[in-house]
Amino acid sequence: MINKLVEKIRKTNAPVVAGLDPMLSYVPGYIKEKAFSELGETLEGAAEAIWQFNKGIVDAIYDLIPAVKPQIAMYEQFGIPGLMVYKNTIDYCREKGLIVIGDIKRGDIGSTSAAYATGHLGKVQVGSRKYSAFDEDFATVNPYFGTDGVKPFIDVCKEEKKGIFILVKTSNPSSGEFQDRIVEGRPLYEWVGEKVAQWGEEFMGDSYSYVGAVVGATYPEMGKTLREIMPKIFILVPGYGAQGGKGADLVPFFNPDGLGAIVNSSRGIIAAYKQEKYASFGERNYADASRQAVKDMIADINGALNSR
Amino acid sequence: MINKLVEKIRKTNAPVVAGLDPMLSYVPGYIKEKAFSELGETLEGAAEAIWQFNKGIVDAIYDLIPAVKPQIAMYEQFGIPGLMVYKNTIDYCREKGLIVIGDIKRGDIGSTSAAYATGHLGKVQVGSRKYSAFDEDFATVNPYFGTDGVKPFIDVCKEEKKGIFILVKTSNPSSGEFQDRIVEGRPLYEWVGEKVAQWGEEFMGDSYSYVGAVVGATYPEMGKTLREIMPKIFILVPGYGAQGGKGADLVPFFNPDGLGAIVNSSRGIIAAYKQEKYASFGERNYADASRQAVKDMIADINGALNSR
Repeated sequence: MINKLVEKIRKTNAPVVAGLDPMLSYVPGYIKEKAFSELGETLEGAAEAIWQFNKGIVDAIYDLIPAVKPQIAMYEQFGIPGLMVYKNTIDYCREKGLIVIGDIKRGDIGSTSAAYATGHLGKVQVGSRKYSAFDEDFATVNPYFGTDGVKPFIDVCKEEKKGIFILVKTSNPSSGEFQDRIVEGRPLYEWVGEKVAQWGEEFMGDSYSYVGAVVGATYPEMGKTLREIMPKIFILVPGYGAQGGKGADLVPFFNPDGLGAIVNSSRGIIAAYKQEKYASFGERNYADASRQAVKDMIADINGALNSR
Repeated sequence: MINKLVEKIRKTNAPVVAGLDPMLSYVPGYIKEKAFSELGETLEGAAEAIWQFNKGIVDAIYDLIPAVKPQIAMYEQFGIPGLMVYKNTIDYCREKGLIVIGDIKRGDIGSTSAAYATGHLGKVQVGSRKYSAFDEDFATVNPYFGTDGVKPFIDVCKEEKKGIFILVKTSNPSSGEFQDRIVEGRPLYEWVGEKVAQWGEEFMGDSYSYVGAVVGATYPEMGKTLREIMPKIFILVPGYGAQGGKGADLVPFFNPDGLGAIVNSSRGIIAAYKQEKYASFGERNYADASRQAVKDMIADINGALNSR
């Protein structure tokens, strides 16, 4: 799957992933009204509105980018109906040829991580049969438990030829509280990065490992160091756009081959029509606004990469 | 909710929580056969088997203990049907008067943590209405993101009078890889513990905070230190039984008032009938075996506490 990701990035010339993290407040009024008129102001109605919203965006952008990253929390908050839309969104995106990175940030003791890995990337045994429950292509993983908590994900990845992205340095303002603490002269995130590089050696694709890392766009200096510590590790970079990261900030995350990183934008793409810049599209054309935002993001990143 | 937990522990004289972490392999053959004959060897069939298994155990033990802790991963691996059983299990346990600790170990950047907090502890707004999606009483939270990732959970807890348990030192063998790294002369988990104590001050119950901690039974020496660092923090202690923790190991986690900790056992309770010790119950009486295991666990812990 990491080879496929690299190939799709090359083909689209877009190291970009669209974060499908819908808030009900992003969904245009006319979509919500239709869903609520059919299903009421219920969890089912909210889920239906998000599903229609997602489909519109995916239809408008699927040919431009290699991958999407649905954030499961945004679906989970609507309970079972929300999670059904998470699953439908995964399936729909895969049908459209997109690679799906499930932003689940799971991680636990070994037996529990094994269950998460099975549910999201693998197949669960039921009697004599096996089923894929969520079936993302990649999943994000929290490293706090150490090797025990990560290994079951790698084992399932090996079976299924899928991948993970492990949190190393997160994009949020308080990420430094623990991640930046100095351990033997170096910040903890570097130690986590070294571990990720080690874990990554266990399961290599052609040029990059099936084990990737998450490093926030909001910390470009740290991105530079981590790029050096983890040369064969693909970096998923959140924090572009709404969280403050810009094209020029992203250059350090890439290798000289122009690969090695994929940049996520969520609000900046899916709620583009709410920005002044794209307001002229109007809410009826929210998906076209998203398409334009994707094009602008690709140009911003490629411009920064080409001028380095 | 922390006051209710303390009250229920006093009433039952059992600082014990049963981990409802069902594996299909724990479910007696006759339950699986019935479920599969009705629904086939499908995700629905697996979920039904787990649901019947859970109900049997809850019916057999609900009067002995204050709380249960379903591990969502074990349900999530069966996809939507599994998560429906997670929700049904929560509702069923609450009807039986049990406090429900959702072992979800979520944690993310602020806006995403807010969605998890809403979905598991709070109410999500849909138009003019509000809905509880999962509605646990407590949830476990991963601290890797720092304050931003934890604060949204505390905010929802304040609104709903619910609580959280934040991972400090986990019970698994490799937990030390990052958690034990030395920062300014002290292990990282102590710094996390100090932060938990600070966060806990923000929302105090009568004698303990609504913000609790997770510290593994497998590390009693560390438990002792953390007990001192976090005097007003209730500690959820996993790792008893199957993971190796014993009654005597648990004493350091408790305060002199005999409170301050609640000990989880999962496999040791729910799959008790598979142990040699309880084999005479037979699989038809698996729930009675679980009841006996709970009684033995309570006696083991109270014995250790009384002889200190």
